Amino acid sequence: MKSPLVKDLTADQAITGFFLVIEKEVRNTNAGKPYLRMELGDRSGSIEARMWDAFETLAKDVSRDDFVKVQARVEIYRNKPQLSLQQFRRAKPEEIDLADFLPHTRFDVEDLYKQLLAHTEGMKNPWLKKLVTKILNDPQIIPRYKRAPAAKVMHHAYLGGLLEHVVGLCALAKQIAAHYQELDVDLLLTAAMLHDVGKLDELCYERAVSYTTEGQLLGHIVMELETVTKAMEGIEGFPEKLKAVVQHILISHHGQYEFGSPKLPMIREALVFHYLDDLDSKLAAVRAALDIDSGEEDWSAYSGALGRKFLRLEKYLTETPSAQPKKEQKN
Amino acid sequence: MKSPLVKDLTADQAITGFFLVIEKEVRNTNAGKPYLRMELGDRSGSIEARMWDAFETLAKDVSRDDFVKVQARVEIYRNKPQLSLQQFRRAKPEEIDLADFLPHTRFDVEDLYKQLLAHTEGMKNPWLKKLVTKILNDPQIIPRYKRAPAAKVMHHAYLGGLLEHVVGLCALAKQIAAHYQELDVDLLLTAAMLHDVGKLDELCYERAVSYTTEGQLLGHIVMELETVTKAMEGIEGFPEKLKAVVQHILISHHGQYEFGSPKLPMIREALVFHYLDDLDSKLAAVRAALDIDSGEEDWSAYSGALGRKFLRLEKYLTETPSAQPKKEQKN
Amino acid sequence: MKSPLVKDLTADQAITGFFLVIEKEVRNTNAGKPYLRMELGDRSGSIEARMWDAFETLAKDVSRDDFVKVQARVEIYRNKPQLSLQQFRRAKPEEIDLADFLPHTRFDVEDLYKQLLAHTEGMKNPWLKKLVTKILNDPQIIPRYKRAPAAKVMHHAYLGGLLEHVVGLCALAKQIAAHYQELDVDLLLTAAMLHDVGKLDELCYERAVSYTTEGQLLGHIVMELETVTKAMEGIEGFPEKLKAVVQHILISHHGQYEFGSPKLPMIREALVFHYLDDLDSKLAAVRAALDIDSGEEDWSAYSGALGRKFLRLEKYLTETPSAQPKKEQKN
Amino acid sequence: MKSPLVKDLTADQAITGFFLVIEKEVRNTNAGKPYLRMELGDRSGSIEARMWDAFETLAKDVSRDDFVKVQARVEIYRNKPQLSLQQFRRAKPEEIDLADFLPHTRFDVEDLYKQLLAHTEGMKNPWLKKLVTKILNDPQIIPRYKRAPAAKVMHHAYLGGLLEHVVGLCALAKQIAAHYQELDVDLLLTAAMLHDVGKLDELCYERAVSYTTEGQLLGHIVMELETVTKAMEGIEGFPEKLKAVVQHILISHHGQYEFGSPKLPMIREALVFHYLDDLDSKLAAVRAALDIDSGEEDWSAYSGALGRKFLRLEKYLTETPSAQPKKEQKN
Amino acid sequence: MKSPLVKDLTADQAITGFFLVIEKEVRNTNAGKPYLRMELGDRSGSIEARMWDAFETLAKDVSRDDFVKVQARVEIYRNKPQLSLQQFRRAKPEEIDLADFLPHTRFDVEDLYKQLLAHTEGMKNPWLKKLVTKILNDPQIIPRYKRAPAAKVMHHAYLGGLLEHVVGLCALAKQIAAHYQELDVDLLLTAAMLHDVGKLDELCYERAVSYTTEGQLLGHIVMELETVTKAMEGIEGFPEKLKAVVQHILISHHGQYEFGSPKLPMIREALVFHYLDDLDSKLAAVRAALDIDSGEEDWSAYSGALGRKFLRLEKYLTETPSAQPKKEQKN
Amino acid sequence: MKSPLVKDLTADQAITGFFLVIEKEVRNTNAGKPYLRMELGDRSGSIEARMWDAFETLAKDVSRDDFVKVQARVEIYRNKPQLSLQQFRRAKPEEIDLADFLPHTRFDVEDLYKQLLAHTEGMKNPWLKKLVTKILNDPQIIPRYKRAPAAKVMHHAYLGGLLEHVVGLCALAKQIAAHYQELDVDLLLTAAMLHDVGKLDELCYERAVSYTTEGQLLGHIVMELETVTKAMEGIEGFPEKLKAVVQHILISHHGQYEFGSPKLPMIREALVFHYLDDLDSKLAAVRAALDIDSGEEDWSAYSGALGRKFLRLEKYLTETPSAQPKKEQKN
Repeated sequence: MKSPLVKDLTADQAITGFFLVIEKEVRNTNAGKPYLRMELGDRSGSIEARMWDAFETLAKDVSRDDFVKVQARVEIYRNKPQLSLQQFRRAKPEEIDLADFLPHTRFDVEDLYKQLLAHTEGMKNPWLKKLVTKILNDPQIIPRYKRAPAAKVMHHAYLGGLLEHVVGLCALAKQIAAHYQELDVDLLLTAAMLHDVGKLDELCYERAVSYTTEGQLLGHIVMELETVTKAMEGIEGFPEKLKAVVQHILISHHGQYEFGSPKLPMIREALVFHYLDDLDSKLAAVRAALDIDSGEEDWSAYSGALGRKFLRLEKYLTETPSAQPKKEQKN
Repeated sequence: MKSPLVKDLTADQAITGFFLVIEKEVRNTNAGKPYLRMELGDRSGSIEARMWDAFETLAKDVSRDDFVKVQARVEIYRNKPQLSLQQFRRAKPEEIDLADFLPHTRFDVEDLYKQLLAHTEGMKNPWLKKLVTKILNDPQIIPRYKRAPAAKVMHHAYLGGLLEHVVGLCALAKQIAAHYQELDVDLLLTAAMLHDVGKLDELCYERAVSYTTEGQLLGHIVMELETVTKAMEGIEGFPEKLKAVVQHILISHHGQYEFGSPKLPMIREALVFHYLDDLDSKLAAVRAALDIDSGEEDWSAYSGALGRKFLRLEKYLTETPSAQPKKEQKN
Repeated sequence: MKSPLVKDLTADQAITGFFLVIEKEVRNTNAGKPYLRMELGDRSGSIEARMWDAFETLAKDVSRDDFVKVQARVEIYRNKPQLSLQQFRRAKPEEIDLADFLPHTRFDVEDLYKQLLAHTEGMKNPWLKKLVTKILNDPQIIPRYKRAPAAKVMHHAYLGGLLEHVVGLCALAKQIAAHYQELDVDLLLTAAMLHDVGKLDELCYERAVSYTTEGQLLGHIVMELETVTKAMEGIEGFPEKLKAVVQHILISHHGQYEFGSPKLPMIREALVFHYLDDLDSKLAAVRAALDIDSGEEDWSAYSGALGRKFLRLEKYLTETPSAQPKKEQKN
Repeated sequence: MKSPLVKDLTADQAITGFFLVIEKEVRNTNAGKPYLRMELGDRSGSIEARMWDAFETLAKDVSRDDFVKVQARVEIYRNKPQLSLQQFRRAKPEEIDLADFLPHTRFDVEDLYKQLLAHTEGMKNPWLKKLVTKILNDPQIIPRYKRAPAAKVMHHAYLGGLLEHVVGLCALAKQIAAHYQELDVDLLLTAAMLHDVGKLDELCYERAVSYTTEGQLLGHIVMELETVTKAMEGIEGFPEKLKAVVQHILISHHGQYEFGSPKLPMIREALVFHYLDDLDSKLAAVRAALDIDSGEEDWSAYSGALGRKFLRLEKYLTETPSAQPKKEQKN
Repeated sequence: MKSPLVKDLTADQAITGFFLVIEKEVRNTNAGKPYLRMELGDRSGSIEARMWDAFETLAKDVSRDDFVKVQARVEIYRNKPQLSLQQFRRAKPEEIDLADFLPHTRFDVEDLYKQLLAHTEGMKNPWLKKLVTKILNDPQIIPRYKRAPAAKVMHHAYLGGLLEHVVGLCALAKQIAAHYQELDVDLLLTAAMLHDVGKLDELCYERAVSYTTEGQLLGHIVMELETVTKAMEGIEGFPEKLKAVVQHILISHHGQYEFGSPKLPMIREALVFHYLDDLDSKLAAVRAALDIDSGEEDWSAYSGALGRKFLRLEKYLTETPSAQPKKEQKN
Repeated sequence: MKSPLVKDLTADQAITGFFLVIEKEVRNTNAGKPYLRMELGDRSGSIEARMWDAFETLAKDVSRDDFVKVQARVEIYRNKPQLSLQQFRRAKPEEIDLADFLPHTRFDVEDLYKQLLAHTEGMKNPWLKKLVTKILNDPQIIPRYKRAPAAKVMHHAYLGGLLEHVVGLCALAKQIAAHYQELDVDLLLTAAMLHDVGKLDELCYERAVSYTTEGQLLGHIVMELETVTKAMEGIEGFPEKLKAVVQHILISHHGQYEFGSPKLPMIREALVFHYLDDLDSKLAAVRAALDIDSGEEDWSAYSGALGRKFLRLEKYLTETPSAQPKKEQKN
């Protein structure tokens, strides 16, 4: 476990700890003397760091995106804390726990994955069960499925976020299928489990969440279409029409053309799944906005994903006097 | 019970039965001889009717939107059935069961209403419970709540459709609130029960579903805002802030400005309720489109409400050979 | 009268005066020494203020949104003026004239209000006359009606702006009704007088213009709908249909769904009033944009409300040589 | 004066009258015998006409868009009246009053034109006065200005409609300029008089209103830009900048790109004129919709130009009991 | 070769020929006597056919979409030609040339295909050359590639239309790549050859052009993505990045989300190809609109694909007097 | 030739050179001492300059938009270079080559103009040839045509950019007309040569590219319409219909209303020219985005004109191993 976190640094503190190098450059003072300037970060935020002397040899060994071990003192410059470096070196892989550098789900991912596999157990359609079992047990996929965020900024934007989102959707799908008996629960579960598999490759989430070049050229819908299609074709006898149905549900799950779905949902389960996915994502975005202090008492921070801010309902209502309505029967 | 239904009429049949007068006019033959032409209907469809002689006295007593008892013979004219009238008179109110003239829910409305009241029983928030109990027990409201359709054409467009939609939403709301524990189930239930109360007055559903003049000028959102606001003000001590919350949920439940919501949902429960209402309505529209024979084997009729047609999933997949996937372990 | 205004402060000036506390915080110098930093303002702008010593006791007594009396010296820091505080204390209510802290209409509000009441005098429709008279004489409403701005930023965004806008609209309505004789002038006057009554509660304009929480949840259209509806119901015998007409005019006056009108204008007077309100607001926004020096000779500042800048017509044309056209008859 | 009008024809009537040939063709009966079929019309509507024998010579002399004098008998065929022709010939020009074949303004056009010229008298800006005087006294323009409709279907779609619209706008412009004293009334009057001059050539309104080929390729904004620019250039010394101002007002008067304005209004008078023109056109469209019997008691016909129907306000309110509010002072 | 075509049938003609059964039903006369009604068609149009007696046995053997050989007489009914059938039987496959029943390109498809293969010859990039060669020589693909239309209604909507469109695009691509030397011609050629391969399966064009169920669920972009991806994976060593580039060009070629492209073009060649494809399609649609007689002299028929009509330029200009401009040097 | 360029300045360098004055103001130090601050620029960028003593007399003679000759020393302040001025004076016109102060095309403009005139030589339509020859040889137009940029920021935003764009379009037009033989090449060439002539006056490009007031009021489409119309009217006998065709092509060349075209292309050549102009502009924008280092290896800078970034195709693909596909025949 690294210590301390950026957000906990206080003035005049002397520290030893590990950070990710976000930026690195050599600059000149007004007097023309070169110095090293870096931006260092961890999952809690980032901070400027400077080293004024004897940094040349140390700096050569370190690049952007490397992890470093630093010895430094916290100073205040223009009212912001800054690290004045005394020593630093590249960190060894075994010294680093990546989880310290990216925010992650508050749930246990092993536990979530078990829940996910449990959902596959109850499936009745033998072809769909075979399909999801095959993909969710693929050793190429498992570790990334446990690690991937669900998005870069919109919702569940933290390690394990994708898995948390998917497991939530599976439970939701079962409830909805119980309510609307015309729905095929196995199709909804398949959709939940596979609809974001393309994000494993669309996003890059080693040290920070960003898009891969292929991710930008193709998008996760097209990428998972390829993965899932290949899996279906690898299952001997997989019905051609069921294949088209699964493909349709994947490509239509964004619900609208302008969100990158080349087809609108034209199957009942495709329509319903689009609603569930959208609802779960939006609620996660609301949750994230409420987690940020906006400075306005009654309101969350503005959510770019939702285009508005949200009321802090409990806070707003508790200012309500706790009176109880009069019992009518007493009158 | 009226008999027979328009859709069951066959050539050369002699009938006696009750119909709604949809159109009535006197026309001239090419030879200049006047005759009576009416369009008659019931919940199954409509048919042309003509009377060639001695209709003047009979016709005077009957207007558009009246019910008539007719004695007639079914003839085929230009390949379509037509009624050749022998006798008719205005029907007496006691002879008519309105349910014969408008389609209605396949559920028992008394039973649905009991379910609705049962949902109010479990509510914990005393103010909200008092509010919905008051409205749902208002003798002015009860009979119309049991009768109103949920819309003119979009979804649940039949007598009792509103109640069916609301009871479905209550059950759905409880499941969603169980899944997302941050949600206040009582607010969701209140929303479900009151969000379409304005439709009781926006629509006119005596003999056919249409809009009232006030309904067109104000819309059901504004109309129910007035009804519910008055009810809240009638409850002594009803908290001011809770009133604003309920009002916000009502006015934002269409989710977008262009659907007549003057505010977008800015409370978590308002957002979620919008999704549930939209999902339930859309699924009902899919159901209606699937109920119509489109002439295309694999597809429903085109749904104007949804802007597309839907796949008949079961039909499409059953053409799939019933083969089972090979057991992988056997390979 | 406070003195001096922020915009008149010059370097090295020693001042004593009253300001609104916009921000207040304690910071540390690089050397770790705490100091007080405030942002102080009045209707002409805002300025940074710092106090380096012995501020602790003074600062405790003062919060954001308080008014303070300060003794200070104007210094230039990074090319901007700044206050170096020597003394300050919370101002007493009687020392403060709020008008010094918010911009206000250049008209006399008492005079405007008299004009407004005069417009009610000439009304012929007894019900509408009674309605507006009741509201405009409500002691809860009068003082706020005289004070409210018409908007936060779009147009007439200053104290008394709403009243100025309304009185202008009344005069305009009379001219238009004289021109188009098919129009009912009393409906237009009623619309002018009541269409923004909801802004009395939607906006908060004690010390700066902002939105109330209820204002954000409901919007002024819904808020005034409630106020006006209650007033109509309080008038015995007020015709039901006239009530629906007034309600329709209020809810449709923004003219389009995306501006928060749940219904489009479907009554002639509603359509016309929407045009008048829009025109008057837009012209006020043009006026405001022309009042700002944009740095471009021929052009106003860019108006966010209008999405463009406007030509300074007179300026542009006066560069035209003042030649007169030749008299044609002389040729 | 032609007689009778199409709308007044009744069964079995023998008539002699003048009509416009809208369609003309020779068809075969089922038995293979050729007959002449024409559609004949006047300003009140159109009717089918047939001639069974000896029509060959007569028909040769007549084409679509010609006027004919016919002798015929009104028969009823498939419940619609039809002319059975006995004789017909091409009408002589002197027999035809075009006004019988196109609807026209209910005002006297000579009188309207005098009002228009009177508005030019009071103008103060010598250049603008010279400009409009020149155009409105151009013998090429006068007769067409008195005759042109303001549009094909949207508003004032009848002969003289353009002039009626313009004269109305001039009066309105003066009132608005009196209300907003910052406005230049001469620019508004110039805009009113010239903003639709291009319609003289965009539309073709000899025998029915349609678009000319040039009108479709260029549109009236571009066409009047050329006309007015030429007129300004023909006035020696016309200020260059004033020319740009007039051109801007013309090209921006539709107010939005999608209505064919290549620039948005960026001059105060351009913005205001756009509002006045739009308001006057929309009110004319409302008037037209109210003139049509829609079959719904409370509502006008649906107006395609406005995308909705309008309430018949007087009709709706007169069902209101004529009760008077109680005098408050009496209570 | 079938004879005669529907469009050449004339009254009273006795014919023997082959037609496609578009509709088939048994109806009753007013007198209750059953008769057979069919709609028969070929590539030139369709016609009603009736048989009054002894049709039962014949009719049993024939269904919609079958070809029939008929013996009949052309009659005129309500001014339209109709077939009165004397005899008919199902046609034998060898009697039918499908090209008689669907419109086809005016070019020779074998010749077009040779041109297409010639374009592959000159390609320099070995991987792309191998890819297109493989697909264009696939015996599963060749016959359908030669036959498919490019669209159902928008452009090149006839047999061989796809091939004609593609060969045109290849030539165009070469010219554009010669003009903009920064472009990779092989990528443009690959795009031209493969961008509509999915239409081979999206459309059904055996007897009339329509969509397959899979075509509606997936669309041709997704369908060809699968075909081309499989082909690339079947080529050993095909570079991963080049694969992503080809996939991107395919999925982005509609240029906008609302036309079903899940990604916008982000590669120069993808952008250019989108323009070429769009231009060629639009020009084909203009050509089709100009081929139809609209009844307006100067104008084409209205093109739904383009949302407007087009000027018949030559026709319009030839009415221009053939005068030549004066030689300026002579002045 | 000026020296050195702003982008080549390095710390501690003593320089003498010419710059454009972008901003000029006198400020006070914290100590209240006035100093001169200017922003100086050339085609490579801009730099701050300060003079601390004895600047008053020098400064009086110099204004914004003047050129100055300066003697200065380059210092580093807050990590950015800055000029410390020792001397400066207004530059004499003969000392300045404007090309040093605005970026320009990499082609020789005299050579481009010759190519442009050569394109006019081959034109067959005598009227169009006369029209373009007249305009392109107008001494008022030539120098500005050689100098104007094609846009302020969107594409070809450098001196000579317009000419480069037009000459490119002429060559492209000829290729397209060779490919689609239905197209009239002379109309396309005319369009290419005249479609942006209005930009000569819409933009101001003396010392920096900006819009003229007339350019903002009218836009280049309306401005060139006037120029070209006048030229056509100045050619005796120029056919009226051809004039309308040329006008239509000019006003429709932006292709959509929202881009300022008051008419959509309704002539084949107008549609095609719109595509060519759009393609050439977009490709230039891509080129400009690729010229900027975005910091992302695989991607260009974000292009505001295109709303996205573009792949650096060559760079991306060269990381591909240079393997060749196996020869299939060898297997």
